[in-house]
Amino acid sequence: MSESTAASQRLAFFQNQLQSAPCAAEEPKIKTTMESMTEERQKATFDVRDLTYFLDGGEKFTKIREKFMMELERDPTFRMYDMYDVTKDQIRERTMEKFRTIVHYVSAEPVPIFTMRMQTISLIDPGFWTRFGVHYGLFFGALRGSATSAQFSHWVSKGALALNGMVGCFAMTELGHGSNVAGLETTATFDEASDQFIIHTPTITATKWWIGGAAHTATHTVVFAQLIVRGKRYGTKSFVVQLRDTHTYGLMPGVNIGDIGKKMGRDGIDNGWIQFTNVRIPRTNMLMKHTKVSRAGEVKEPPMAQLTYGALIQGRVAMVVDSGNIAKKAVTIAGRYAAVRRQFSSNPHDVQETKLIDYAIHQYRLMPLLAQAYAFHFTGVETNKLYDDLMDTLESTQPDDETMGEVIDTLKETHATSAGLKAFCTWSTLNAIEACRQTLGGHGYSAYTGLATTYNDFAVHCTWEGDNTILTLQSGRYLVSCYREALAGKSQPEGVSYLNHLDSLLNLGCGVKTNEEILSFDVIQEAWGVVTANVVKKAGDDFEVSLKAGMSPEAAYEECSQARLAAAKIHSYGYIFRRFAQAVKSAPEKLQPVLTKLCLLYGLYSIEQNAGFFLQYRYFTPSQMDYVRSQVNIFCREVRQEYIPLIDAFNYSDYMINSPLGVYDGNIYEKYFDQVKRQNPVGGEHPYLPLIQSLLRRDIEDDEPLEDDDEDDE
Amino acid sequence: MSESTAASQRLAFFQNQLQSAPCAAEEPKIKTTMESMTEERQKATFDVRDLTYFLDGGEKFTKIREKFMMELERDPTFRMYDMYDVTKDQIRERTMEKFRTIVHYVSAEPVPIFTMRMQTISLIDPGFWTRFGVHYGLFFGALRGSATSAQFSHWVSKGALALNGMVGCFAMTELGHGSNVAGLETTATFDEASDQFIIHTPTITATKWWIGGAAHTATHTVVFAQLIVRGKRYGTKSFVVQLRDTHTYGLMPGVNIGDIGKKMGRDGIDNGWIQFTNVRIPRTNMLMKHTKVSRAGEVKEPPMAQLTYGALIQGRVAMVVDSGNIAKKAVTIAGRYAAVRRQFSSNPHDVQETKLIDYAIHQYRLMPLLAQAYAFHFTGVETNKLYDDLMDTLESTQPDDETMGEVIDTLKETHATSAGLKAFCTWSTLNAIEACRQTLGGHGYSAYTGLATTYNDFAVHCTWEGDNTILTLQSGRYLVSCYREALAGKSQPEGVSYLNHLDSLLNLGCGVKTNEEILSFDVIQEAWGVVTANVVKKAGDDFEVSLKAGMSPEAAYEECSQARLAAAKIHSYGYIFRRFAQAVKSAPEKLQPVLTKLCLLYGLYSIEQNAGFFLQYRYFTPSQMDYVRSQVNIFCREVRQEYIPLIDAFNYSDYMINSPLGVYDGNIYEKYFDQVKRQNPVGGEHPYLPLIQSLLRRDIEDDEPLEDDDEDDE
Repeated sequence: MSESTAASQRLAFFQNQLQSAPCAAEEPKIKTTMESMTEERQKATFDVRDLTYFLDGGEKFTKIREKFMMELERDPTFRMYDMYDVTKDQIRERTMEKFRTIVHYVSAEPVPIFTMRMQTISLIDPGFWTRFGVHYGLFFGALRGSATSAQFSHWVSKGALALNGMVGCFAMTELGHGSNVAGLETTATFDEASDQFIIHTPTITATKWWIGGAAHTATHTVVFAQLIVRGKRYGTKSFVVQLRDTHTYGLMPGVNIGDIGKKMGRDGIDNGWIQFTNVRIPRTNMLMKHTKVSRAGEVKEPPMAQLTYGALIQGRVAMVVDSGNIAKKAVTIAGRYAAVRRQFSSNPHDVQETKLIDYAIHQYRLMPLLAQAYAFHFTGVETNKLYDDLMDTLESTQPDDETMGEVIDTLKETHATSAGLKAFCTWSTLNAIEACRQTLGGHGYSAYTGLATTYNDFAVHCTWEGDNTILTLQSGRYLVSCYREALAGKSQPEGVSYLNHLDSLLNLGCGVKTNEEILSFDVIQEAWGVVTANVVKKAGDDFEVSLKAGMSPEAAYEECSQARLAAAKIHSYGYIFRRFAQAVKSAPEKLQPVLTKLCLLYGLYSIEQNAGFFLQYRYFTPSQMDYVRSQVNIFCREVRQEYIPLIDAFNYSDYMINSPLGVYDGNIYEKYFDQVKRQNPVGGEHPYLPLIQSLLRRDIEDDEPLEDDDEDDE
Repeated sequence: MSESTAASQRLAFFQNQLQSAPCAAEEPKIKTTMESMTEERQKATFDVRDLTYFLDGGEKFTKIREKFMMELERDPTFRMYDMYDVTKDQIRERTMEKFRTIVHYVSAEPVPIFTMRMQTISLIDPGFWTRFGVHYGLFFGALRGSATSAQFSHWVSKGALALNGMVGCFAMTELGHGSNVAGLETTATFDEASDQFIIHTPTITATKWWIGGAAHTATHTVVFAQLIVRGKRYGTKSFVVQLRDTHTYGLMPGVNIGDIGKKMGRDGIDNGWIQFTNVRIPRTNMLMKHTKVSRAGEVKEPPMAQLTYGALIQGRVAMVVDSGNIAKKAVTIAGRYAAVRRQFSSNPHDVQETKLIDYAIHQYRLMPLLAQAYAFHFTGVETNKLYDDLMDTLESTQPDDETMGEVIDTLKETHATSAGLKAFCTWSTLNAIEACRQTLGGHGYSAYTGLATTYNDFAVHCTWEGDNTILTLQSGRYLVSCYREALAGKSQPEGVSYLNHLDSLLNLGCGVKTNEEILSFDVIQEAWGVVTANVVKKAGDDFEVSLKAGMSPEAAYEECSQARLAAAKIHSYGYIFRRFAQAVKSAPEKLQPVLTKLCLLYGLYSIEQNAGFFLQYRYFTPSQMDYVRSQVNIFCREVRQEYIPLIDAFNYSDYMINSPLGVYDGNIYEKYFDQVKRQNPVGGEHPYLPLIQSLLRRDIEDDEPLEDDDEDDE
């Protein structure tokens, strides 16, 4: 970007961009921001609507999403323009108001449609989405997963589904324990005499902590506590405990609840802490689908550990989908701004400053993020589908079916892959939001431009429902075990199928003869296969060395944790590229050219970011890597040509974007100024007039000390 | 980290960590968090106090800093425990209150001491620091830099320094122009008849925007506007304009001011927007140290563009220093938490869970950030010194001195290096804050644990006073021009001295024979030299190719912008490593072993992060790179041994840290719980009781539609 002044272009700035005065014929035309946006739309080589339909899975779903967007925009409780200024208490109250609308749809709409509605809401109001998820996904989900059918009916009849009569929350984490659920300290001691459990918080670290909806909303909770019967401990089980009177909202005896208070984001959900002091509940409030405790105090444990993978995977897949959606939103704001914001000039002959997006470096900052948003979108769609298929298969497979082994393998793979993807996509998206925010320059620091709040709301994805580092390590652990199985000759499932031809991959070396060959899905896929096989091998070999040195498997896994982390990350890169490429191949023919460019950009950029591994394992030579770098620039320029149509295809309404810098028509300055004035009206009382008046009108006293009258005094 | 349950350790959890009950002799001892912290302190191989003195530049300065910390902690207007809950208006009011204390010191303390006071304040209250910087650094600085001595005296006598009678702000950026100052649209038209300038905002995009202190505080401002005399434009100059009556605080005629409103962070400063509508000011309000306009409308421009580098460099150096300070704060919180937080067990025989910091992956997450904080600290100290020396030299050098050429070269180098370092250090520190926040797991999302706010406050550094990307490109542009000069035989200054022996560096290739050789400052320094020379050469060659293809220099620079960006980043890595190594060599002997480890870790980790370049330019072979990776792990483990003493040496009081998870004594849970309860007292009124009662007690109406009585009706 030219940092020098270009005198010849200066005249142009003084003309009002917004009020176009009639110009003489020879006067150069200065484009308004709206005109600058319009010209971007004219560059499309494809039909934007077709791409939207393809992204949404068909015209029918686009129409449903548009219906949802309109319903939200017109619902006064979902007004968003003032969300950046409301206090924590106001936002919580408003979140509560929204339930009245939404509970109606819970029972009225089929699950897949209602899920789409909630996905739409999650984009505009993550705090509400979280609170909804607490009452339904967590509390109600726990009932469905762990209650007997009689228990389930009981709680539904009490109003757990309709939120009529009761509303639940989910009390798992404690002040001292998050990831290690088995280490929770809260106790549930069976008292045979009264046929009750005594729920108790023995220490300060056992205080239930971060419990969403507990501070002011929930009347009931599912508590995770150590089951103790006749002095014997049976591990962590779940119990329904009433927290508050459902009429007066007074706390139940022995229940002590407080507000966790201010958070980085998502203030719409009232996270709280709970302490139980010898709280008695009926024995039948223990959720007994798996472990049962009889009237006589007999504990019957299930024959094998229950399959809880399913619920975990669902949450992770939802976060992969959310990553794609939020990444699209961030890119929409940054992308549209870059199309109309002008600063400096890259060409002294231009009458107008240059659009940000016409600078090579700006293309390099944004185009890979656009490609990544598409990659995550397709990955979300695909993993969602895999998850649904898997659940269908699980339901239709009996334990003694001969396909059961294969099903279990797929389940394990999906579990590990979704763990790695959740971490990878949420980390990458958090970085992308910040990168997009910074491309707005100073304006990115304003709350009203939206990305600061988006960052703060999104950040929690990296640590909840499985801390990203721990999930990545889990995924790496799975890869190490697959690698060892593959070495022993056992065939591996689709997601890690590169391990089925380890020999050829590890010995392939550089598989490319000419630079041009690199620009193909197959080569990029092979490149990731080779590199992933190598990093997984590295982790596996490190593990093996530790084992041979006499370490326990646990210690050996710990020893190779950095290698596991690297393996899981690289695995995710390759996995996501394959998903993207697969989606492109399945796209309507007319969309293929543009999507192919986008996918190649994603592949090349990812390789550039991980150049160390590709050079280390010699899939590419240094000069090929230079070629990759130069092609990243070229593809950035290519994709830039129709990047606004590619963004438009996400089809988020201005209401959903909720940022004056990301508006569809490009009228950014006027809308930004309007938003600032609307939220901060001119005039009114001065917030600290007496303070500043007394500062500016103070007497500055003489600093000289009083001199002694008489030195000889005394 | 073990994800499995370890039954044998479970018993341990149920014991209260905080209330130690008397135990039987054979019962294993469970350590409290405080005991866990104490044992870390016992591992120190050096005297923590000695290291503090070394970091501070001597015992004397440590004492001064400690005095400042105590004064702040006891000043009620600087109370910090409730800062996470106050509203924007409250925080602004409180920021105003602080001025009464601080203006006293402005005149009472020598500048270097007062600067240390402000550095201390910036750590705990960045919003106040910014507001102070607006009134002094920017407004008063503009007077000092651009006013004639008579003008300067005039404004000082009005109270510009004492903030008594007036308070100023700095109106440069506009809604439509940030980085491109020459492109500002506001006009200052000379009206000869009245001997006045007419200050005017011609368009919406010309609205002064982001003006710190304008919304409610400033009575005067320095406006940057296009000077127009007799229809001719002379470029951007500066003018003092009164905004408000200094008694009533009413706006002056033609001045229209509003509040910019909510921001990502630093709400203590009241950023505003200003529109001028034909505001008349005396001609003598134009700051005329450089360009002058006479009564008769004659414009006298200075013989050469003024040297404004100095002021720019100062701001950037301050941000490098701030990066080090904030990085130290973030690492203190994350580091102390990791020493006492326990989760899972890496060893089934342990009676207690494992400290986070004893997991290899946690060491890998934190130890390089600790090393980086030290690296940035030393870089800040050194660049500060370079800047001071440079300013001294500039003042004592006359334009016709024969050393002037050399001085100008050093000035240019410092300007470019400080641009690159500002970007590099603020980016890296922002990432470090987020990485530290995530190591707190779920608790990092609480506002009270401090790092969320730290992130939000710090983020502005990446876009203000020169957007980081633009600064990095500037630095890269300088490197390209140095490279071309070096090729032409001109010797280059110290910061880029590797360019003086390009031939040998470019042809050196792998300079290491045995792996062990890598672990030396000299080899790492040489490695960075070789790689930097190569990436700079790449950018320079790209530039040359474009030139030869007939492009203008501007277009050629634009064409190689990605290569320039890479060159500047790599240059900063090498530069910072040299500063760190230099500081270690100058340290007292007893401190050398521990600092040497830290510095080697920084060097090795940085190489690992940039493995692609080291392999690309073949300074390291793939197997040497594997060795580097393994050594990063080993050095993480080494540094971990006494990392708490290394953190203690930063010597930040608990008040300064302002996070219950980073307290010195390790009593994290109790202090965290106390903080949450203090800010969110139990009991009190329910914030939305009627809302939730009406939700839970609603009549669910029958969804069946009323059936027609008579189908045949009609």
